[in-house]
Amino acid sequence: MKEMRGATVAAALTEQAAEKMGKLQEKQVIPCLSVIRVGKREDDLSYERGIGKRFEKVGARVRIIELPEDVSQAELERAFDAENENPLVHGILLFRPLPSHLSDRPLTCRINPDKDVDGMCPTNAARVYLGDKNGFAPCTAMAVIHLLEHYEIPLSGAEAVVIGRSPVIGKPVSMLLLNRNATVTVCHTRTRDLAKICRRSDLIVAAAGVAKMVGKEHLSENQVVVDVGIHMTEEGLCGDVDPAAAEICSAITPVPGGVGAVTTSVLLLHTVQAAERLTQEV
Amino acid sequence: MKEMRGATVAAALTEQAAEKMGKLQEKQVIPCLSVIRVGKREDDLSYERGIGKRFEKVGARVRIIELPEDVSQAELERAFDAENENPLVHGILLFRPLPSHLSDRPLTCRINPDKDVDGMCPTNAARVYLGDKNGFAPCTAMAVIHLLEHYEIPLSGAEAVVIGRSPVIGKPVSMLLLNRNATVTVCHTRTRDLAKICRRSDLIVAAAGVAKMVGKEHLSENQVVVDVGIHMTEEGLCGDVDPAAAEICSAITPVPGGVGAVTTSVLLLHTVQAAERLTQEV
Repeated sequence: MKEMRGATVAAALTEQAAEKMGKLQEKQVIPCLSVIRVGKREDDLSYERGIGKRFEKVGARVRIIELPEDVSQAELERAFDAENENPLVHGILLFRPLPSHLSDRPLTCRINPDKDVDGMCPTNAARVYLGDKNGFAPCTAMAVIHLLEHYEIPLSGAEAVVIGRSPVIGKPVSMLLLNRNATVTVCHTRTRDLAKICRRSDLIVAAAGVAKMVGKEHLSENQVVVDVGIHMTEEGLCGDVDPAAAEICSAITPVPGGVGAVTTSVLLLHTVQAAERLTQEV
Repeated sequence: MKEMRGATVAAALTEQAAEKMGKLQEKQVIPCLSVIRVGKREDDLSYERGIGKRFEKVGARVRIIELPEDVSQAELERAFDAENENPLVHGILLFRPLPSHLSDRPLTCRINPDKDVDGMCPTNAARVYLGDKNGFAPCTAMAVIHLLEHYEIPLSGAEAVVIGRSPVIGKPVSMLLLNRNATVTVCHTRTRDLAKICRRSDLIVAAAGVAKMVGKEHLSENQVVVDVGIHMTEEGLCGDVDPAAAEICSAITPVPGGVGAVTTSVLLLHTVQAAERLTQEV
């Protein structure tokens, strides 16, 4: 079984971003991402540190907009609009979920689609769904695709099973695979005989959000598995796939160190692409 | 083999529309659809006549905006904008494809999503993709779903195969089935061993656009088949499914008289729903 580690994929994407940075610098443009965070959730802070390190590698900027846990909807929207309108900001990442007294809906409706580097607005959803390459897919969904392409996994004609149909991972991954000519089956909690459906596929993307739910009975030889899950258990971090069972597959992404390691570099690449698009001369 | 005819479905949907019409009339609202047609293509004219008859049954209005074959892009857009802004118009249907010197893109970008009764704009695409019930799906895609629901075909947990991934039928049908908890596989020209994938499914929606391409080798017992294709051949009209082969299935839609017979009643229902939405007191 081959391990498909995320770090080499992240390095390759970062290099791609660095090349584009060179051309932008000639035009005095420095790509800048605004991260909007409400409160101090540990996983937000950890992702934020990862973003900071990744962007620093190529000289891209990160602005942290920290708002108090009890910020009002109006204050949140005001802070958001300032970034959305700031011509020196090219990408916006809003940490979600928001505290329960706040709604992200007004923000997803009015974010500039070209700044929407984590693909949260309807315009980018429609672009991903319709196969328009100008759409920004959510970074984790796109990380799955970059990972598969980096390891040269054949997608055209492959039978792919996506477990999960969330708007952030399952659905966009399904559409991105379909646009790359895979034959895609979308599975979910109501799917009957998931194990049988998984076993007969060439590729599994596990994004169910349930620790170790994919076991021996789901897997077969010559199969490539991408594990999007990440769960804290008593024995440490694990994914949606039981690592013991994964031995029989042809290749799998580790958890940690797989998809999660690619996400910040996708965010960087999207931010650099956004900067290119927003500063294009017309 | 049971034949799932469209006419009874159309009658039930028309009745639904008529009920809603009653309530709208109390508010002096008469639902009105504008049909924009460039040139005189025979299939456009035939669909237009079908719409006229269907709308007349319940007293809804149809405005025909006929433009000459050689209309300019600017004139087309002017005519379109007039309907889009007219408060007495609740739905707009643009016949496509347009002649090659014209582009529908500016129109799909600025149609009022609440008047977009044939689901051509990105806002409605995103709604269908994300499972938002306020979205208008393209009428033919929605006709497939109404047909299945009318004949009480169980969708939750069913293994469904959709052949075709067009933005007008294959993709929206896939999303609508997924939102109804089917396990959906999207197949297309690059799919390997389509026959095997079809044979093992509970439900096939054939929207490949190739006459009689679904044959004996794709079908099995206890299977429900919806045939979206319609093709003129030397022996008359036929669908994507070979009628001789279909004998072994549990149920199938005839061609003609299946999905095609439902479409105008979906358009009517969407127009009535649009009228409700656009005249709602806020």
